Amino acid sequence: MKETPDNINFAANNGLLDRRFFLKAGLGVGGGLMSASALSSEGKDRFPWMKQPGMPMGQSGPSRFEEHIKREGVGSQPGTTGSGASRTPIEYLDGIITPSRLHFERHHSGIPDIDPAQHRLVIHGLVERPLSFSMESLARYEHVSNIQFLECSGNSGAMISPKPLQRKASNLHGLVSCSEWGGVPLKILLDEAGIKPEGKWIVASGSDAAMMSRSVPIEKIMDDAIIATHQNGEPLRPSNGYPMRLFLPGWEGNACVKWLRTIKVTSGPSMTKDETSKYSDLRDDGIAELFTFPMGVKSVITSPSLSLNLTGPGIYQIKGIAWSGSGKIKSVELSADGGKTWAEALLDEHVLPKALTRFRSAWKWDGTPATIMSRAIDEKGNIQPTREQWFVGRAKNTFYHFNAIQTWGVNTAGEINNVYL
Amino acid sequence: MKETPDNINFAANNGLLDRRFFLKAGLGVGGGLMSASALSSEGKDRFPWMKQPGMPMGQSGPSRFEEHIKREGVGSQPGTTGSGASRTPIEYLDGIITPSRLHFERHHSGIPDIDPAQHRLVIHGLVERPLSFSMESLARYEHVSNIQFLECSGNSGAMISPKPLQRKASNLHGLVSCSEWGGVPLKILLDEAGIKPEGKWIVASGSDAAMMSRSVPIEKIMDDAIIATHQNGEPLRPSNGYPMRLFLPGWEGNACVKWLRTIKVTSGPSMTKDETSKYSDLRDDGIAELFTFPMGVKSVITSPSLSLNLTGPGIYQIKGIAWSGSGKIKSVELSADGGKTWAEALLDEHVLPKALTRFRSAWKWDGTPATIMSRAIDEKGNIQPTREQWFVGRAKNTFYHFNAIQTWGVNTAGEINNVYL
Repeated sequence: MKETPDNINFAANNGLLDRRFFLKAGLGVGGGLMSASALSSEGKDRFPWMKQPGMPMGQSGPSRFEEHIKREGVGSQPGTTGSGASRTPIEYLDGIITPSRLHFERHHSGIPDIDPAQHRLVIHGLVERPLSFSMESLARYEHVSNIQFLECSGNSGAMISPKPLQRKASNLHGLVSCSEWGGVPLKILLDEAGIKPEGKWIVASGSDAAMMSRSVPIEKIMDDAIIATHQNGEPLRPSNGYPMRLFLPGWEGNACVKWLRTIKVTSGPSMTKDETSKYSDLRDDGIAELFTFPMGVKSVITSPSLSLNLTGPGIYQIKGIAWSGSGKIKSVELSADGGKTWAEALLDEHVLPKALTRFRSAWKWDGTPATIMSRAIDEKGNIQPTREQWFVGRAKNTFYHFNAIQTWGVNTAGEINNVYL
Repeated sequence: MKETPDNINFAANNGLLDRRFFLKAGLGVGGGLMSASALSSEGKDRFPWMKQPGMPMGQSGPSRFEEHIKREGVGSQPGTTGSGASRTPIEYLDGIITPSRLHFERHHSGIPDIDPAQHRLVIHGLVERPLSFSMESLARYEHVSNIQFLECSGNSGAMISPKPLQRKASNLHGLVSCSEWGGVPLKILLDEAGIKPEGKWIVASGSDAAMMSRSVPIEKIMDDAIIATHQNGEPLRPSNGYPMRLFLPGWEGNACVKWLRTIKVTSGPSMTKDETSKYSDLRDDGIAELFTFPMGVKSVITSPSLSLNLTGPGIYQIKGIAWSGSGKIKSVELSADGGKTWAEALLDEHVLPKALTRFRSAWKWDGTPATIMSRAIDEKGNIQPTREQWFVGRAKNTFYHFNAIQTWGVNTAGEINNVYL
C-alpha cells in the first residue's frame, strides 16, 4: 500500500517514523506547490541582491543573518578576567565537525598569548634523556590526524539540579565539540626520551597563569595520546591551547592540558589541585573517586529542543549528536512517549571512533503533548543510563561525568521544556 | 641492525625513507637533549605569559602569530568589484579539513547578501508538480553530510605556462578545499516534483548578479547531488553560497552553483555562457569538449614547497594532499630523484571517497640538489599523469582540469623552485 501523510507505518508510538522515511517520495512534507501565476512570473521578479554586484572578494565570515550562532554563555567567574566556560551552540549546528570559532572553552586563568618561537615542550622526570622540543623540531616527527570529540567532564552538570532547569541544549550540554585533531603521537617522543622502568604516570603542565596540571597513566599516553598542534586543518586557536596541547581521545577535556609546556614522567599520580579538589566524583558513601577519565556513552536531541519550538502539527526532523569515550556509536534509539516505546534513528555516513555521530529521524507530531528522548549505545555495549540510574552510588551534589538521557517535553503549543521523568 | 641517523634503510633514491620511519624511536631527529643546568632551572624561569592572567574568555580567532595563514591572492578582476578568485593557503595547513574562512572562492559578480527568510528554491521545468521550498520547509527533509573536496576546474591552470612560474603551492594549486558538506539529497526533492520522461538534464541557476547557470545530467543529480545548506557543521558562509548551493561530489566547482535559486528540469543541456565560452576543454584539433565534469586524480606536495625552504641537511617531513573525483585515494608515491625511483607515502587515518587525503613521509636531505614529486593513484586505478602526458590531445592554451604531477626543485641552499622535467 502506498504511503501518504495520513497512511504511514510508524516505528514507535506517538509519531516516530521509520528512520528511512525521508528516503520515500511523494509525501509532500515540505515543498509548496507553485501556482500557474507564480510559475509564469518565475525569473521575472528578482531579489534585490540580484540587481547589483555583490559584496567584494575575501569576505570569509558567517552571514549577518546567522549572528545568533555564537558561543553560549561567554563570561568570566566573578573576580577573574578569564576563568570560566563558554559553550558550543549545539542546537544550531549540523554534521559532526564543530567550527573552531564555536568550540567550547574552559579556562582557569585566561588565554595566554604565546609566542611559538619562544615556546618549548620539555619532557623530563623518570627518563633516560630529558628532551626539549621547539615547534620546528616537533614538525619533523610523524604527524597523525583524527576526527574526535572533546568534552569537559563538567558538561551537563546542571542536570543534577533537583528541578529541571529551563535552559537551552547548548547551555545544558554544550561543553562538547568535535574537531580534526592533528599532532605528534606522544609515544614517539617518550620512546626517544626513554622511560625508566619506574615511570608509570606522567604529569602534564600548561603555561597558562594557572599552570593547569594533570596526571595521566602511562598506558594511555603510549596508546593514543598526541601532542596536538592542529585543529580542523590549521594551527590550534589560542582558546584551544595554541601552540600545543595534550589530546587524549575519549578522555575528559580537563586532562587534555592546553598550552602544554612540560611532560614529567613520574612513578605515580601527582595529586594536583585539579584532580583532587576538582574533577573528582563524590560517591554516596562520602569517598571521592579520582582519575575517572573516560567519558561515557551519551546523546542529546538538539532539535527540537528548548527555544526551538514546533510551529504546528506536522512532520519534523528529530536530530542530535551521540558520542562515547569507548569507541564508535553503535546505535541511537528515540522515544516520543517518555521511554515506553523506542525506534532506531538513522546515523549519518561518518561514524568514527570517539567522534560526534549525527543521528536523525522523522517524527509526525499530532499536536498533543509528547516527551522525546534519545538513548545511545556504543560498540562496547555501553548503554546511556536514565537520570535515576546515573545517580545510583553517587552523592547528590556530584556533577562530573553526567551522561544520562535528556528528556524534552513538548506541550500542545509546541513549546519545548526540559523535563525529568 | 639498529637504525641510526647514519644507518637507515632507504625506500627510494636520494634520501626517501620508509613511510613507517617515524614510528621508530631513538633517532634523535628533532628534540634537543637538555643540559643538567637547563634541567635544574626547569620550572623556575617562566615565560611572560605565565606571570599574569591571560586574555579574556570568548577569543575565538587564530593566534596573532599566525596572521600569515590567510586566503592567497584576494582581489577582483579589473573593472569589477567582486569577480575573481582567492585560494586556500595549502602550504600552511595539515589534516584534511579546510577551515571555512580559508576555503577558496571564485565569484563572477561578488557575494550576494541573501536574506534566508526571503530566499526560495524553485524546482520547475519538465516536472509534474513545480515546487517552491523555503529554508524552513527544506529543513524537514532528510539531511546527509559527507566530508568531500571541492575544486575549481581552473585550479593549477597556471601550470600550462611554457616556463614554470615561481609561485607558492597555494597560488598554483590552492583552488581546492575540503569540508563536511551537509544538505538534502536532490533526488528526494525531484522525486517529489516528479520528473517527466523527457527530463534528462537540469539547469541550476544562482541568485548572484551574474546569475551563474550550469547544466548537469540527471544521472548525477539522482546519484549523489545535494542541496548543501551546511559546511563544517554550521550554515554555509556567504562566500560559499549561503543559504544554499548545489554540491556535486567530485565534480568541478563551477557546476556546484552557489546561492542556488532554481533547478529547471530540461531535455538537454542549456548551453549557458559558463559552459560554452568558459569551463570547456580545447583539444589540439580545435574542437572544444563540453561537460567534462569529474575532477581527475591529483596530488601536490605542500611542504617542502616554494617559500618553505629547507634550513640545512637533515631529516624532513614531506607532506601533501591527494584527491580524486572518482573515489578514494589508493596510494601516493614519492620521488626525490625526479621520477627515477619511487617510494610509497604514508596516508593519514581518514581516507574518504572524493575527499582530500593527507600523505606524508620522512626524507633525509643530504644537501645536494634534489627533485621531489608526488604521484596519486585512485581506487579506480587512475594514475596522476606527467605534465607531458597531460598535454597529449590538448590545445596549448587550454588550462581547465590540469592534474599533472607537480615537481619541486631543491638547490644546494635548500631553496625550493617550481620546475618542469
